[in-house]
Amino acid sequence: MNIAIDAMGGDNAPEEIVKGAILAKEQYPELSITLVGDQDQIGKFLPEKHTFTIIHTDEVIETSEEPVRAVRRKKNASMVVAANEVKSGKADAYISAGNTGALMASGLFYVGRIKGIDRPALAPTLPTLNGDGFLFLDVGANMDAKPEHLLQYALMGSVYWKEVRGVEKPRVGLLNVGTESEKGNALTKAAFPLLQEADINFVGNVEARDLLMGAADVVVCDGFAGNLVLKSIEGTAMGMFSMIKEQLTSSLTSKLAAGVLKPKLRGIKDKLDYTEYGGAGLFGLAAPVIKAHGSSNANAMLNAIRQTRSMIEKNVVPTIQNHVQSQDNKEE
Amino acid sequence: MNIAIDAMGGDNAPEEIVKGAILAKEQYPELSITLVGDQDQIGKFLPEKHTFTIIHTDEVIETSEEPVRAVRRKKNASMVVAANEVKSGKADAYISAGNTGALMASGLFYVGRIKGIDRPALAPTLPTLNGDGFLFLDVGANMDAKPEHLLQYALMGSVYWKEVRGVEKPRVGLLNVGTESEKGNALTKAAFPLLQEADINFVGNVEARDLLMGAADVVVCDGFAGNLVLKSIEGTAMGMFSMIKEQLTSSLTSKLAAGVLKPKLRGIKDKLDYTEYGGAGLFGLAAPVIKAHGSSNANAMLNAIRQTRSMIEKNVVPTIQNHVQSQDNKEE
Repeated sequence: MNIAIDAMGGDNAPEEIVKGAILAKEQYPELSITLVGDQDQIGKFLPEKHTFTIIHTDEVIETSEEPVRAVRRKKNASMVVAANEVKSGKADAYISAGNTGALMASGLFYVGRIKGIDRPALAPTLPTLNGDGFLFLDVGANMDAKPEHLLQYALMGSVYWKEVRGVEKPRVGLLNVGTESEKGNALTKAAFPLLQEADINFVGNVEARDLLMGAADVVVCDGFAGNLVLKSIEGTAMGMFSMIKEQLTSSLTSKLAAGVLKPKLRGIKDKLDYTEYGGAGLFGLAAPVIKAHGSSNANAMLNAIRQTRSMIEKNVVPTIQNHVQSQDNKEE
Repeated sequence: MNIAIDAMGGDNAPEEIVKGAILAKEQYPELSITLVGDQDQIGKFLPEKHTFTIIHTDEVIETSEEPVRAVRRKKNASMVVAANEVKSGKADAYISAGNTGALMASGLFYVGRIKGIDRPALAPTLPTLNGDGFLFLDVGANMDAKPEHLLQYALMGSVYWKEVRGVEKPRVGLLNVGTESEKGNALTKAAFPLLQEADINFVGNVEARDLLMGAADVVVCDGFAGNLVLKSIEGTAMGMFSMIKEQLTSSLTSKLAAGVLKPKLRGIKDKLDYTEYGGAGLFGLAAPVIKAHGSSNANAMLNAIRQTRSMIEKNVVPTIQNHVQSQDNKEE
């Protein structure tokens, strides 16, 4: 099994990316990893003796670049070279903490879609209070989704959660403004019956306020809605932490009390840290392609590699393909 | 000036509703208030001598009822009678903490729309870290909005924020998945140029994660997206409070520290309490119609009454009408 990693993507590249890869090799010595990027910069963080394959390139796609154009023009960019490793069969999957749009574009151009999937989805695992997390898709790959797309997301998410997380019948929910079946906009109203008839454990509509409570294992929605909800959760959590910090340091007594509580609050922050659950999958591509968080540290990279390894080992992509085909046959 | 209040709507009716009305009369002795509902139940919370007008009815619309049918059938429901007070010209506005959908339906049937407004919007004021808050519309009245609807929301919100909050040029933002002008779904892409050309202070796209930081004074979006974001903020805040509580009471030392910090955390909760900013306006109806939060206590009702009084005093509805007409003339 070989995983190609864009060593130059993300805020802390290449240091934390390389360190994460080293951690992964310690845990999974049988895993072969190809690091793509500037060999001098990468080399700084590698021990003298190592078993990584390094592909040198000094081209990088920046976060600010227009994704499709960047992928088309920069054929030697670290991300694009990593994608090409999968295309040529030398790698089974690739990971990047870089430009999300460019990662999707590189996946579409070099890896291609699973037959029967119209639009890939960006699928992170978000935290829940009980620590299980839930798979949330799409959070921004496809802004104007059709009902069939939501059905495909549900099938893909269900396979992923079963194979990688080992839950026999993952609960699939449709993100909506109320739990009653007739609620929602034109899209959710049309998607509801499709999900009901599909070969999944559909638990109906779930509300945004119940996501953290673990209302479902897999939650599907269009990319516009998913992105808004993801960022609302992030913004509220960040805003609350900043308010707590301000309140806790506003007087001497509370400063003292805060000293005691700091590790506790740290615990809450960790619980909400979704890099713990791995990266976001670009589901629907013909190989596992994983977007690690832009601010990934070594541990976040380790988690992303672990997740990617698990997707390869559990045959997630071929299993999705089979499910989509049998769904298509059912419909015909 | 007369305000009709549905005394039977909400979780704490009629007690807290009546108590809120009493507080409002203390602050604004010149204000005349009509309480609609069961006179015996209302009477329990009124002093022997009072200056409220009471209209007795024992019919109530429940939260669980299908809104349009309930409003059509229950012509003597407290909410419907309050709406009728506005229709007949006896009241200038009405308030309810009851069924939101039924409030909208009663507004449409009895009060009607402002000429030039296609769809009314539900518009609460949400908290920001600096305490100013922002007007957020639509959060669920109109699930499948058209670009023109978002323009109308922007005009209405801008007038409201200027007249009631006294901000000369309210910053109007379009809720979106990125700040760049080309971002978003078909709806936001079509709405962007309309907002740019309108006679408002349009500050462009705003992201969900920047809402709490006060990215704009007025934020417009379709009702589906707005409802999801509203409930994501609520759910995340609630989830974090429950985690904090759990962490703070998990050992004796932290219990002691928590004792010191409790009032501080209370302060954060208060800051996030959006009933402090009044109720949610049903903007686009031909009179001020205000939805107080379902769990309103006396203080929340007082704030909703204060807001309603201000909307009447500042002529918000006629001013909206003028703005919509001049926008329409511009377009012709």
